[in-house]
Amino acid sequence: MKLNILGCYSATPRTLTNPTAQLLEIKNHLFLIDCGEGTQVQLRKSKLKFSRVRHIFISHLHGDHFFGLPGLISTFRLLGREAELHIYGPKGIKEAITLLLKLGDSWTNFPLLFHELESKEQETLFEDDNVIVQTIPLDHRVYTNGFLFSEKPAPRNLNIKVIQKLKIDRSQFNNIKMGKDVIMDDGTKILNSALTFDPPQTKSYAFCSDTAYNEQLIPMIKGVDALYHESTFLDSEHHLTTKTKHCTAKQAATIAKKAEVGCLILGHYSTRYKSIELFKEEAVTVFDKVELAEDGKTFEF
Amino acid sequence: MKLNILGCYSATPRTLTNPTAQLLEIKNHLFLIDCGEGTQVQLRKSKLKFSRVRHIFISHLHGDHFFGLPGLISTFRLLGREAELHIYGPKGIKEAITLLLKLGDSWTNFPLLFHELESKEQETLFEDDNVIVQTIPLDHRVYTNGFLFSEKPAPRNLNIKVIQKLKIDRSQFNNIKMGKDVIMDDGTKILNSALTFDPPQTKSYAFCSDTAYNEQLIPMIKGVDALYHESTFLDSEHHLTTKTKHCTAKQAATIAKKAEVGCLILGHYSTRYKSIELFKEEAVTVFDKVELAEDGKTFEF
Repeated sequence: MKLNILGCYSATPRTLTNPTAQLLEIKNHLFLIDCGEGTQVQLRKSKLKFSRVRHIFISHLHGDHFFGLPGLISTFRLLGREAELHIYGPKGIKEAITLLLKLGDSWTNFPLLFHELESKEQETLFEDDNVIVQTIPLDHRVYTNGFLFSEKPAPRNLNIKVIQKLKIDRSQFNNIKMGKDVIMDDGTKILNSALTFDPPQTKSYAFCSDTAYNEQLIPMIKGVDALYHESTFLDSEHHLTTKTKHCTAKQAATIAKKAEVGCLILGHYSTRYKSIELFKEEAVTVFDKVELAEDGKTFEF
Repeated sequence: MKLNILGCYSATPRTLTNPTAQLLEIKNHLFLIDCGEGTQVQLRKSKLKFSRVRHIFISHLHGDHFFGLPGLISTFRLLGREAELHIYGPKGIKEAITLLLKLGDSWTNFPLLFHELESKEQETLFEDDNVIVQTIPLDHRVYTNGFLFSEKPAPRNLNIKVIQKLKIDRSQFNNIKMGKDVIMDDGTKILNSALTFDPPQTKSYAFCSDTAYNEQLIPMIKGVDALYHESTFLDSEHHLTTKTKHCTAKQAATIAKKAEVGCLILGHYSTRYKSIELFKEEAVTVFDKVELAEDGKTFEF
């Protein structure tokens, strides 16, 4: 799993800082998470073949998380895209995009499929044999979801030596890969654990932005390999978190610690601070595995 | 009058090229013309104090001319703007912007005033003592206007030596500045031309993008000091102009020549060409005063 940070700052695009957008490479998928203004330029800079994006997940309808979406869709159209594009986001997103395309008389010539969200409970948005994507309901000024991306366990690996020795027929291989035991002709039961090896460990990534400090999300992100959690402020601006429904670096680290995640990636920084290193310095006082998101940076896990 | 090119390419923003946006400094006004995605970043790069923009003119509702507007308005809000902002653009622009702000629960705390256009005749959009701004109806795939920015003549300069010699009373000065003659106590008429010098020459700038070749706009732009005219294609792609309703560099130069403008500025280049110099090479075969718009370039006239 590889995470490409396209933009990780809050509020407005500036000369050197971009609003939220991430590209997640997971099991042959290229998922786009949020799409602030300028995301399509960041996609070009990433050198990834972004026409491969088929699923876009929008956390909420503040401009710094979705004002790049109309332009990206228009660009897909101009590039002659034919593949389906799925947009997952809060109710209203379909009306907004549809209106903009209608006003420009620029309807797409590829299928544009909206999946509008309004539930405050966790939902499954996408699932195939390899991956499942679920919402993480967050607590922000407007309706907002984080997203949980989990690899599904691969089939178990056959222990060919044992299988050949026992002369187990090929027709049973699929069942064995799926974890089933085998009953031999003489009635003996061979446990699956004797016939297979564990598959590679599955990985998971949770994206939580924007949100107030919210312990209710802990069970949903328990033990994920990587957690991106917003840290708009430092503790010195803690007084701003209640009204704005954002978090400090310390609060993000507290969530990471309680959820026992593999590592915490901070982002959505306010541009009021001189250095983003300050966010890391604050977070490591609570939780030790802290990384800083930066525009153009990638993380592999 | 100073023209700042923020972006001058067609279709989509790319790593090194920006879609249409211009900032015109004219008689203490800072007028923004079009606002493609990323315009607010280009404004920051220009180092101009862009909070001074009070009037934004949008030619048409294709994304490369207005997808930067919602973000710019949101940024004005975040920066604590209080001054009125006037948006002039095609009917529908109010609904689009209003919907986006409503979805983000981010209504502006400054007055946002929309002036929606739907006339196919020339209209006056703005006028004060120094400047007049009028539409230039264009011929594109959707309803589109260019804009004509004209300085009004300044008052005439008094010839103080002659006025003192004739002992003309100060109370008449304003009338003289406005071009009136003076009747002396003995009934003699002194012509204004004997009492004043010509004020500085007024300047005018016409912005024409996007448009098919259209001779109907010639009377509206006759003799302007500078004409920005789109040149999406070279003559080798002339066959694309009819369907797309764009122009070649040669066509733009033909309009400039027939309208006897002071200089022609080319822009809205398709990114299919290796060098924008090719546009100039083609245009100068028809009209000799040709300049190339480039992102970040300024023109004074």
